[in-house]
Amino acid sequence: MIQTQDIKRPAANLVAGLKALGAATTSSTLSKLGIGNSHICGPVARVPGKAIAGPALTLQFMPKREDLYGADEYADPEKQLHRHVLYHAQAGDDVVVDARGDMKSGIFGEMMLTYFKGRGGLGVVIDGCIRDFANARDLGLGIWVNGVTPNYHVQTDVMPFGVNVPIACGGVLVMPGDIIVADDDGAVAVPVAMATRVIEHANKHHDWEDFSRERLSEGGDLRRYYPLSDAARPEYEEWKARRRS
Amino acid sequence: MIQTQDIKRPAANLVAGLKALGAATTSSTLSKLGIGNSHICGPVARVPGKAIAGPALTLQFMPKREDLYGADEYADPEKQLHRHVLYHAQAGDDVVVDARGDMKSGIFGEMMLTYFKGRGGLGVVIDGCIRDFANARDLGLGIWVNGVTPNYHVQTDVMPFGVNVPIACGGVLVMPGDIIVADDDGAVAVPVAMATRVIEHANKHHDWEDFSRERLSEGGDLRRYYPLSDAARPEYEEWKARRRS
Amino acid sequence: MIQTQDIKRPAANLVAGLKALGAATTSSTLSKLGIGNSHICGPVARVPGKAIAGPALTLQFMPKREDLYGADEYADPEKQLHRHVLYHAQAGDDVVVDARGDMKSGIFGEMMLTYFKGRGGLGVVIDGCIRDFANARDLGLGIWVNGVTPNYHVQTDVMPFGVNVPIACGGVLVMPGDIIVADDDGAVAVPVAMATRVIEHANKHHDWEDFSRERLSEGGDLRRYYPLSDAARPEYEEWKARRRS
Amino acid sequence: MIQTQDIKRPAANLVAGLKALGAATTSSTLSKLGIGNSHICGPVARVPGKAIAGPALTLQFMPKREDLYGADEYADPEKQLHRHVLYHAQAGDDVVVDARGDMKSGIFGEMMLTYFKGRGGLGVVIDGCIRDFANARDLGLGIWVNGVTPNYHVQTDVMPFGVNVPIACGGVLVMPGDIIVADDDGAVAVPVAMATRVIEHANKHHDWEDFSRERLSEGGDLRRYYPLSDAARPEYEEWKARRRS
Amino acid sequence: MIQTQDIKRPAANLVAGLKALGAATTSSTLSKLGIGNSHICGPVARVPGKAIAGPALTLQFMPKREDLYGADEYADPEKQLHRHVLYHAQAGDDVVVDARGDMKSGIFGEMMLTYFKGRGGLGVVIDGCIRDFANARDLGLGIWVNGVTPNYHVQTDVMPFGVNVPIACGGVLVMPGDIIVADDDGAVAVPVAMATRVIEHANKHHDWEDFSRERLSEGGDLRRYYPLSDAARPEYEEWKARRRS
Amino acid sequence: MIQTQDIKRPAANLVAGLKALGAATTSSTLSKLGIGNSHICGPVARVPGKAIAGPALTLQFMPKREDLYGADEYADPEKQLHRHVLYHAQAGDDVVVDARGDMKSGIFGEMMLTYFKGRGGLGVVIDGCIRDFANARDLGLGIWVNGVTPNYHVQTDVMPFGVNVPIACGGVLVMPGDIIVADDDGAVAVPVAMATRVIEHANKHHDWEDFSRERLSEGGDLRRYYPLSDAARPEYEEWKARRRS
Repeated sequence: MIQTQDIKRPAANLVAGLKALGAATTSSTLSKLGIGNSHICGPVARVPGKAIAGPALTLQFMPKREDLYGADEYADPEKQLHRHVLYHAQAGDDVVVDARGDMKSGIFGEMMLTYFKGRGGLGVVIDGCIRDFANARDLGLGIWVNGVTPNYHVQTDVMPFGVNVPIACGGVLVMPGDIIVADDDGAVAVPVAMATRVIEHANKHHDWEDFSRERLSEGGDLRRYYPLSDAARPEYEEWKARRRS
Repeated sequence: MIQTQDIKRPAANLVAGLKALGAATTSSTLSKLGIGNSHICGPVARVPGKAIAGPALTLQFMPKREDLYGADEYADPEKQLHRHVLYHAQAGDDVVVDARGDMKSGIFGEMMLTYFKGRGGLGVVIDGCIRDFANARDLGLGIWVNGVTPNYHVQTDVMPFGVNVPIACGGVLVMPGDIIVADDDGAVAVPVAMATRVIEHANKHHDWEDFSRERLSEGGDLRRYYPLSDAARPEYEEWKARRRS
Repeated sequence: MIQTQDIKRPAANLVAGLKALGAATTSSTLSKLGIGNSHICGPVARVPGKAIAGPALTLQFMPKREDLYGADEYADPEKQLHRHVLYHAQAGDDVVVDARGDMKSGIFGEMMLTYFKGRGGLGVVIDGCIRDFANARDLGLGIWVNGVTPNYHVQTDVMPFGVNVPIACGGVLVMPGDIIVADDDGAVAVPVAMATRVIEHANKHHDWEDFSRERLSEGGDLRRYYPLSDAARPEYEEWKARRRS
Repeated sequence: MIQTQDIKRPAANLVAGLKALGAATTSSTLSKLGIGNSHICGPVARVPGKAIAGPALTLQFMPKREDLYGADEYADPEKQLHRHVLYHAQAGDDVVVDARGDMKSGIFGEMMLTYFKGRGGLGVVIDGCIRDFANARDLGLGIWVNGVTPNYHVQTDVMPFGVNVPIACGGVLVMPGDIIVADDDGAVAVPVAMATRVIEHANKHHDWEDFSRERLSEGGDLRRYYPLSDAARPEYEEWKARRRS
Repeated sequence: MIQTQDIKRPAANLVAGLKALGAATTSSTLSKLGIGNSHICGPVARVPGKAIAGPALTLQFMPKREDLYGADEYADPEKQLHRHVLYHAQAGDDVVVDARGDMKSGIFGEMMLTYFKGRGGLGVVIDGCIRDFANARDLGLGIWVNGVTPNYHVQTDVMPFGVNVPIACGGVLVMPGDIIVADDDGAVAVPVAMATRVIEHANKHHDWEDFSRERLSEGGDLRRYYPLSDAARPEYEEWKARRRS
Repeated sequence: MIQTQDIKRPAANLVAGLKALGAATTSSTLSKLGIGNSHICGPVARVPGKAIAGPALTLQFMPKREDLYGADEYADPEKQLHRHVLYHAQAGDDVVVDARGDMKSGIFGEMMLTYFKGRGGLGVVIDGCIRDFANARDLGLGIWVNGVTPNYHVQTDVMPFGVNVPIACGGVLVMPGDIIVADDDGAVAVPVAMATRVIEHANKHHDWEDFSRERLSEGGDLRRYYPLSDAARPEYEEWKARRRS
């Protein structure tokens, strides 16, 4: 009988703090803290406007090898390893899959994703495809994938091989339990041990961004408003005071 | 004068039966019946929600060779081979094009597609591009393409070469008259001789899927409901009975 | 202090004339006038329905070389070259960027694009990515990019290197001041010196297209209506007369 | 029983004339005569120094489709289509294969190539791979392939589909009977109807090339010797006279 | 201190039996026994004529993540994981590396390969590059790599992550201890449990191949000699008898 | 008349110092000094064993645009820009070309390369192809290219655009006058201002490498000999003393 490990989940305030930052600020802040690239490049937002943060359950696919993957898997669904990652799903979790960029294997279909949603799952990030997209997109999950396909998960060249193990996804190493931050810009993996620093570092900046955005949209000078120049700071303080009142 | 062959069209019940299955079930059923991959990989649904099934008219492009393709084609439109595949169009037909993955050749533009729609055509599946997309997307056709381009069909590196001949499209061999099933998951080619078996095999399953989907969306156990376990069958029978009444 | 050159802007009637043609007609007309391919292949319309024409400000990225790009750029924003191309922005301008197809560098974010819009900018064409897409897509700009990313512009492998210099973008040479015509089919670069000829050549045709489109959509014969045959011309003249009255 | 067509072979003097030119001069001359690109791009010379010219037998592979390709092919070798192209082999022939760029299918192995050599075959040009390369390279054939593999021809994703039909190989349309000119620069396809013109056009030039090469290798001025300037012509005439004596 | 596991080595007769077959026969035999593709596609023979068989030590690279890989690795070489796989090397071993296809990371240099050779290592198969190739190629090792580079192993985007764990290399799953068979056709991975069957199955055939090769090279009929026809069997028996005497 | 700038050439001792290091040591030393990647990735050594160092003349190609490149270039060879980079050639120079990775354009042929050799040129590094390879490889030049082709330089999609301007080649920014170090591992670009530091930093190490190599090749312990451990230093000193005597 297959036994797979669960993950350790991060504190709720870390998840909430990163969600508030969004993928772009998280990625650039990680970069300034020494993580050159945290963008899972390849998977693209397929449910526009969806933004999530949560710990990563991970699933690893490998090239199919027939001596290690048998037709009897369909006689006994419990042997299907990609089900097991979902058995660990808790409210707030994400699933991140190394599908090897395969465009002819639909890692999950509507039923699996419905189950994941039913368990409180937030989203999936897959370096590959899902199937049943017409229905899957309306489940309320965030979906970041390279594409979609009518094929099922082991129909062509890959097979599931590991659950909650370190994986590579879109050129990024993802450890089980890393916090995934994903929105229309794509998905970013945050090492749990760096989450506090990311939040603190990011929040130091940006308090004047709403003001600057307004001025820039009215034709204001980039040099004056972005980043906020010393010359414009009094104007900003006044704007802020007015807004508070 | 150019003469091209028409295709043999399949029985209407086969087309209807496959349309009811959709691309995902058709592809996985074909796989279980021995056709490893029937997914035309590359062309992506550009008119979301559109789902079609119908016989394939086929059009083959080849690398352009100037001794075989002359500038006089535009003096005499009847020499333009890509028009001829549309002359065969009947209500319910699809056009499948091997455009060699070329991203700089728009195989059809708005006028050609308008004509195809006017003849009752359902959709186009192209391992390449169309042009005039702003207008084409509103015609009511299904459109599965790799991309779009402002260029016309012979502007750069390819030229039409064969009509209603066997073609490769997106890594799948498509025979003229094959039944194309396409929706948001992509397009699948079904050999006519296998259509009956696909429909029969697929329909054996799936009667409990609506029930299971409902349970899974409420947080039900994947092991119990997908596939439907023996333990859950009475619950399903009861649910079915209640729905009928 | 960084000094960069401005561009010479084309006459307004040229811009208006090309905008009326759209990308598809512009590209095919240029082809007939000797410019084989003018389609900037790669950048895809991300704001559907948006159609623009305007002169190109250009920005060139190069592979990052640490001896030529220092961490102090963030201490002094004026050293950030990608800001300088925007300093030249006037109402009606486009920005075209050779981002080397890099999928892990977001050339502009929301604040920069807000400034560009505030200055009257129309759109950006980038052989690469932007970031902050969730907000950027609602600014009212046209956006043609290969993709989106949460990363900032110099986070990984490239750096800005030239402003308003000749660049390659999507396989097309773009000179500063070239007129960009872009819509849902993609973006096309028009040499200013050819703009008049393109407009004149294109407008000779197409006056019967509305008539033909109507007939084709009703199931009319392609041979009769596209291109308009001599046989159908009286029918067209009658249609035209009826429409005028 | 499988019947495939033979090709029409060109006159021996055309083959000899093109062989004398070599691939580079043939390709550039074809370009000047209107054939933009005749270079079969992808297949690379694997037997350095080998140079050939001869008519093309063609073999077309298609994506494998299990309903059209059965395991019984190995029970009855006569059903193996890739054998049939070799049955047509005569002294001086080449075989050109559209193997779809597949890197996991060895189109021919040592035994098939030995047979081809035994029949007088000159070389193979394959947009894909051969196997048994350690032995094949010593047969005395010219071999232009994308790579080598231990796999056999139908082991993975493709199957032979047509013999002596028009094919695309390395981005070039090759007609059965076209003359292939191949050497260390790669392979070029020459339409038979253009062979005479190519030879005549190419031979007009180049009589001074040996002289110029000698001068350039001694540090002579490119402007004076390549192409031969009027100023250097007397020097060349003298050189030529001296060589004759 | 880093501890990594050794592998279980196969019986010597299995290794010898597979070496005698070579990569092509091993791959096709595995295919007939159910393993569709065992060709490690990408790594190419860089030392022509070298043919080896032996158990696989495996090394896994992952995308670099700066929080998990520190600059201090060079202060303490024992932290460099790619050294540890070589510590396990015994006479007759191969090293197989998943280098993620990275073309800018030289997994091993001359010194490491010299050590491996000194320990009796046979060859390396890397889905990536080595460095110091000018010296490495003369060590007497077999070298199958995608390419070469002057860069060292962690200079750009990847880092070593696992030793003697299951890896993907060139689209094939390789388990630690699998038997690698590699020659000029490339490298093949043989599951140890199948080695006996592969050897037995392969040796049933092929006893007539030398005879057939001779006949084919003299222009003999492919239908008669390959595979050996019943009609030619007496001729073969006679040939064999003659050779024995 | 076309006028192009010459380059500033580095001191001879810098060139000699870098040549002694070779590409691998140069690249890794640059990395330690802050230049992450200096490997021009793509161009591969085609003349095995050739090792060079010298200043870079640069040549930039751009996508062909017919309004900027006319057929009359062949009427007047002086308009061919790729000749002009060679006019600057002095003994010890290299030519580095951004050919945009184009595989169907032969940047230089035998005659041009003969001239370059006649002028004392050392080698060419091209992110693309040359032609006439059968003759070019015997000229005595180092040749690093992506491939070879029979096509000439402007036959298909690109045209020369700039001489001795900054270029990107194989993912590396190359400034005119940078010192190129190239051997069987590939080509590396060294900023002139860093050359002294590279040489000094590299020469601090490596004096014990010959000793260690010898020990490792005899089966010595990697931990003891590479890098040289304190424990092995006396052994090394003794070895060195013995060699001197």
